[in-house]
Amino acid sequence: MSTTTAWDVPALRARLARAASAATAAEVDALLVTPGSDLRYLLGVPGESFERLTCLVLPAEGTPVLVVPKLEQPGYAAVPTADLGVEVAAWVDGEDPYRLVTNLLGNARRRVAVADVMPALHALRLRDARPEVEQVLAGPVLRELRMLKDATEIDALARAGAAIDRVHARMGEWLRVGRTEAEVGADIAAAIVAEGHTEAAFVIVGSGPNGASPHHALGDRVIEPGDVVVVDIGGPVAEGYNSDCTRTYVLGQPAQPDVADTYAVLQEAQRAAVEAVRPGVTAGEVDAAARDRITAAGFGDYFIHRTGHGIGLDVHEEPYIGGGSDLELRPGMAFSVEPGIYLPGRWGARIEDIVVVTEDGVRRLNNRPHELAVLPA
Amino acid sequence: MSTTTAWDVPALRARLARAASAATAAEVDALLVTPGSDLRYLLGVPGESFERLTCLVLPAEGTPVLVVPKLEQPGYAAVPTADLGVEVAAWVDGEDPYRLVTNLLGNARRRVAVADVMPALHALRLRDARPEVEQVLAGPVLRELRMLKDATEIDALARAGAAIDRVHARMGEWLRVGRTEAEVGADIAAAIVAEGHTEAAFVIVGSGPNGASPHHALGDRVIEPGDVVVVDIGGPVAEGYNSDCTRTYVLGQPAQPDVADTYAVLQEAQRAAVEAVRPGVTAGEVDAAARDRITAAGFGDYFIHRTGHGIGLDVHEEPYIGGGSDLELRPGMAFSVEPGIYLPGRWGARIEDIVVVTEDGVRRLNNRPHELAVLPA
Repeated sequence: MSTTTAWDVPALRARLARAASAATAAEVDALLVTPGSDLRYLLGVPGESFERLTCLVLPAEGTPVLVVPKLEQPGYAAVPTADLGVEVAAWVDGEDPYRLVTNLLGNARRRVAVADVMPALHALRLRDARPEVEQVLAGPVLRELRMLKDATEIDALARAGAAIDRVHARMGEWLRVGRTEAEVGADIAAAIVAEGHTEAAFVIVGSGPNGASPHHALGDRVIEPGDVVVVDIGGPVAEGYNSDCTRTYVLGQPAQPDVADTYAVLQEAQRAAVEAVRPGVTAGEVDAAARDRITAAGFGDYFIHRTGHGIGLDVHEEPYIGGGSDLELRPGMAFSVEPGIYLPGRWGARIEDIVVVTEDGVRRLNNRPHELAVLPA
Repeated sequence: MSTTTAWDVPALRARLARAASAATAAEVDALLVTPGSDLRYLLGVPGESFERLTCLVLPAEGTPVLVVPKLEQPGYAAVPTADLGVEVAAWVDGEDPYRLVTNLLGNARRRVAVADVMPALHALRLRDARPEVEQVLAGPVLRELRMLKDATEIDALARAGAAIDRVHARMGEWLRVGRTEAEVGADIAAAIVAEGHTEAAFVIVGSGPNGASPHHALGDRVIEPGDVVVVDIGGPVAEGYNSDCTRTYVLGQPAQPDVADTYAVLQEAQRAAVEAVRPGVTAGEVDAAARDRITAAGFGDYFIHRTGHGIGLDVHEEPYIGGGSDLELRPGMAFSVEPGIYLPGRWGARIEDIVVVTEDGVRRLNNRPHELAVLPA
């Protein structure tokens, strides 16, 4: 199990208290948090999810209880549960953990918020154990806590950002003519770990026409001279906070005549969107800052995704930076700014930085140059 | 995305048809299958699950439809959907994929089975899109299909078993006095891939007292002369089917005086349980074959888990081999037989083989010796 190496007990206590308050404000009697990033946010460990139920029962008022299979209890031995004011209820095969959870809710409770990642296996069995208990999603309840990063979280994101910048700085070691995307990707994955991540969470190497497919990962296509190549990579550092950074490369002179002018539009759009970030601006306005420039240059139909996504313990989380969103940016929010232009069957390009909203503007956590990076053909 | 390299269209068509029949038999109007092993079983790809909904809508009668975000559609491009009789419905940001799914259900449909792994994020939003549609779990509906492996599946499990046997055969290269569990585990993980798995899904190296904790993974403990060490390892081969095999090692002469006699009890218990496997025997009888011998020798309180679990596209799946289970074994069922004896604070041991129920008995997919394996101290 991947864990943080130390627990900041006062910080976690404060998070548990704020989560309980958020439950009260949302008129929820308890949060039911199964393994995943919400559990890591609250207890410092992500836990692991198997067929046996592990669930933090965090009531709006009262003592939190970690329900855990006795067999898996050693995985939580390092969590300072006593210092956090969390009781532990271990169960063994043959007992009914769903009844154990619903008994903890007490008779009067009628509304619980279940973690967004809770598998239906558990959510439906909890429902069947007490059908009169209404289930809602915990994501909206915990959204504000998770979105507004504290200094420790931003520090971890900054270290992740610096680590992925070091990988991009070394791209010329691996991204060469004659190699397949998969070969290049394997080297990048190793470097992501070598430069300070605990794993490579994702590696996208989209060369030539594959770059026009935003979620293309790795294929057997051989890199050719003149290829434009989208490289979108990231992973978590020890504390679980992720990097996510895209740069676009070209092997020698671009094979396609429209690359320079089109890329200049993208670069200007990405710059404008980052510069639009400050408290009080809406997510939709940041999206528009990029999209309007791309649309004005005639490429609106080729920018086929939102401008960004929040990042933290999850690679994709709130706030999402999409068209029409009236979410007002606040200090501590961290998200990607990653417009792209995708010309089907031909080539694509994307520039992605993680940014944090500060008291008076924006801090960039990725700092590699934004120009189309020319590597030897 | 990790995928199989070829699709056996007739086999997948037959699975889709049988799943639809199983839905009918379970009085379910449609199966809603999000990314995971059920999707891999039905379409040949596991898919990937992000915040955007991907879901195979498989009606009891009618045409299956794969609902997928347009952005992630390229990940399914290799699936021969037309040959499989599956329609594809791509959706873009701004559309409501839950309404798209509930519209596919038609007005008359009232009961759907959702994949056990479906995150609450999607299950509750589907519920909110059409609250009158009852949700049940798809696991029980697909249980028999997933449990009864065909020849192709057993062949993949056998290749996985042979690959993990090769890793155990090389254990002396890595498991040595003076190294930490984590160092040994890193080498084992690399060998799991080198010997033919696509990844190391889990690596347990429980040395000395850590061996007494069945789910201990890897720690910083340094291996000492005389240590008994539990090594439980596995991962998937290309088709997604998993290995899972445990052997127990000792570094020179055991430091504890009771190792030889206790291990002999375990070895006899594991042998008896494997030999009990044949069609018509119940899972509970297999569990009892191991447990009765361990209990009779006075170690009943130290065998703290069920005797085994099914294995296939998931490392843990049906059938579970636990006390009291009246599930009758049938040809094609594949599961682990893995009794253990765990002496808290001192040492532990476990022997685990994957076996398949045949027409008249049992086939072992792991074939390394069962004796306590002595490595140089």
